Amino acid sequence: MKKVNIIWTHPRQESLTGKIVSGIKEVLASEGFSIHETDLYRSDFSPVLLQEDEPDFSNPDKYYSETVMKMAAELDPDTPLVFVFPVWWHTLPAMLKGYLDRVWNFGLIYGEGRSVPASKVIWVGMVGMDEHSFSKRGFDANLKNILNVGMAGYCCIPQSHVELVYNTLGDNIVSAEAHYNGLINQAVNAVSNFLRN
Amino acid sequence: MKKVNIIWTHPRQESLTGKIVSGIKEVLASEGFSIHETDLYRSDFSPVLLQEDEPDFSNPDKYYSETVMKMAAELDPDTPLVFVFPVWWHTLPAMLKGYLDRVWNFGLIYGEGRSVPASKVIWVGMVGMDEHSFSKRGFDANLKNILNVGMAGYCCIPQSHVELVYNTLGDNIVSAEAHYNGLINQAVNAVSNFLRN
Repeated sequence: MKKVNIIWTHPRQESLTGKIVSGIKEVLASEGFSIHETDLYRSDFSPVLLQEDEPDFSNPDKYYSETVMKMAAELDPDTPLVFVFPVWWHTLPAMLKGYLDRVWNFGLIYGEGRSVPASKVIWVGMVGMDEHSFSKRGFDANLKNILNVGMAGYCCIPQSHVELVYNTLGDNIVSAEAHYNGLINQAVNAVSNFLRN
Repeated sequence: MKKVNIIWTHPRQESLTGKIVSGIKEVLASEGFSIHETDLYRSDFSPVLLQEDEPDFSNPDKYYSETVMKMAAELDPDTPLVFVFPVWWHTLPAMLKGYLDRVWNFGLIYGEGRSVPASKVIWVGMVGMDEHSFSKRGFDANLKNILNVGMAGYCCIPQSHVELVYNTLGDNIVSAEAHYNGLINQAVNAVSNFLRN
């Protein structure tokens, strides 16, 4: 059976981010995927890297905290990976950044002896402001570079795509229902197409 | 008396980051500054933004969690601000990102009714890799844009500078002592000069 890992973060399950995750799960299930979901906010995950999870670059066999070892083992080079998150201050929220800080660690996900964490990765980020305001300041290019080059490229994931969903604040819209349904559809279609191709 | 706020983050107090903070405090004290220090790791701060700290863009008077209200009140438009942190995955570590996610909030630090959080801000980041490897992939430009434009500019802080201290892993160095003393001096001098000018 085709597998997929979904990792997402938002303080409210019923947020737009949560709705997008539900939409993605529904479509991927209908397409025959077996889904492994990690809801960082509702799984007691702490994004704070403590000393036990500091990399030791002289020891690629370092045994990290139980949480980190378990979560790293949930990733594998034959399974695609979907991240869903709100963009705060133009970049990753602390919860997702802390997941990467802790779990994507030396000897596990990069460096000697590591295992590539995904066959491909798509990063679905929800941006409050509109596309023009965000991109004219270079924030879209920043985020794509950090995620595609800095994260996926560094970890040798063969394919990485950043899908940004804009104007989640709903400025200057006519119908809220049409606007938010459009955003959900954009995200769901982007993930479905990315996993198919 | 001249005041300065220092906010820093590292899991180990005796880390290079911690040593740089000590060096900065020593020099600023000798220059007559009264220092307010926030050591995020050793002050029980959680970088996880919960629902109580989500901005309500229809209410600039929202009362956030006690921690957030207290920490926002420690900032003020007449006091310079110094951040010291390790750069992880080419950008801010989760602890500092979560401080910004939570405390630099709508109605407090930006938006209607807010108070500018500093007279000027310097971001001192410790980068594991060397400058050439970091900058050729655009990570230095990313970080400067996010911090100078995305954070300081958005919050109307009149002056912002990013000082990156490179090769903290000490690759290809001759003398570890000379190398690390050089890094500490670079950071301390950058802060001292920035506050003077």
